Amino acid sequence: MKCFVLRVFVASAVSTSIGIIGGTGDQGRGLAYRFATAGLEVLIGSRSAERASEVAREFALPNLRGSDNVSVAKECAIAIIAVPWAGHEATLKGLEPFLRGKIVIDCVNPLGFDEKGAYPLKVAEGSACEQAQALLPESTVVGAFHNVSSVVLLNPEVAEIAIDVLVLGDERTATDQVQTLAELLPGVRGIYGGRLRNAGQIEAFTANLISINRRYKAHSSLRITL
Amino acid sequence: MKCFVLRVFVASAVSTSIGIIGGTGDQGRGLAYRFATAGLEVLIGSRSAERASEVAREFALPNLRGSDNVSVAKECAIAIIAVPWAGHEATLKGLEPFLRGKIVIDCVNPLGFDEKGAYPLKVAEGSACEQAQALLPESTVVGAFHNVSSVVLLNPEVAEIAIDVLVLGDERTATDQVQTLAELLPGVRGIYGGRLRNAGQIEAFTANLISINRRYKAHSSLRITL
Repeated sequence: MKCFVLRVFVASAVSTSIGIIGGTGDQGRGLAYRFATAGLEVLIGSRSAERASEVAREFALPNLRGSDNVSVAKECAIAIIAVPWAGHEATLKGLEPFLRGKIVIDCVNPLGFDEKGAYPLKVAEGSACEQAQALLPESTVVGAFHNVSSVVLLNPEVAEIAIDVLVLGDERTATDQVQTLAELLPGVRGIYGGRLRNAGQIEAFTANLISINRRYKAHSSLRITL
Repeated sequence: MKCFVLRVFVASAVSTSIGIIGGTGDQGRGLAYRFATAGLEVLIGSRSAERASEVAREFALPNLRGSDNVSVAKECAIAIIAVPWAGHEATLKGLEPFLRGKIVIDCVNPLGFDEKGAYPLKVAEGSACEQAQALLPESTVVGAFHNVSSVVLLNPEVAEIAIDVLVLGDERTATDQVQTLAELLPGVRGIYGGRLRNAGQIEAFTANLISINRRYKAHSSLRITL
């Protein structure tokens, strides 16, 4: 039964599309590459349609295209927000009308950097995810893909990404769908990680992974032991 | 060489002692049981010496004793703070003179609970660890054991605890020592997880583990993929 639900979802996802807002950065490109390789139709969005198309063309995949953020937000079935934190609020305000009724996956990590490394920035709403939900009241915001290394995503020699993707949200049907989406990435397990009010520490956890990467010369992520 | 350093540390730790402040709660008892089983001398501390002795006696281990928090803080070589968050500030203020010059391991998670589950509480200093370091300026505070299930620690049928303990701190010699200490627990790997300023999200992450435990009926923890 679970398998059947998965198949229906995949079939429907293939016939629609994943739009990656701010998809020309490392995280966006990495997710675009992996979802397109998994067979989904993927749209990379950018403020500049030209830049987005250029980035999409580099992958040379027939189901991966680029366009401006507004067109991508309009066309996609599910949006992934992958903009830098500095552009998070303004980007979402501008796209609000086009994201209504859709699942919006936020993977943005509000981090600062100084000579001692990375650290979490304070967010008035508690987290990027909660800010997104406040700005997009008619969308269903789900947090996911915060702790995935873009270096690993973009490395075609990594066939299996043996990590868990924590999926956060307040609506079960949406988090279930995003867990299934995450598991289209080979090796990945999608794990429900709590409500949106518990997204802040998952975003901030990326600062710890950056510290771990420095110490152990790694591209770390996490697994949950159940 | 690494093995030699480990042995010297273990020998020295055995000849001294681990003091668990607030050690009669589940987390404190779990750590006490595991460190005592690993051969260390362990002192369980409580506001009531009688209660601490009672809890210690239940384990019936010759190297595990109980006493009042002040006596334990005075006598121990390394302290572990395992009090409830509500008593964190007052307890540390009272013990400050006795913890000078020592490594103080803080494993306290400032969490609130309501009908929707657990969520992180705001901490003025950023985290329990940073509050501890502010209150104990002459001690070296290290964060560790935040995400370890007390149910697992206290289950004698669990021989190997196959998790990573994230160790946070600003002094390398201290975090190295606590990583070695963590690895005395069979199956555990001690991983450096960043500076104290990145401890808040590791404490808060326990709220996510509680959500995961509810959803998956598990006693979850984490592994870092390197």
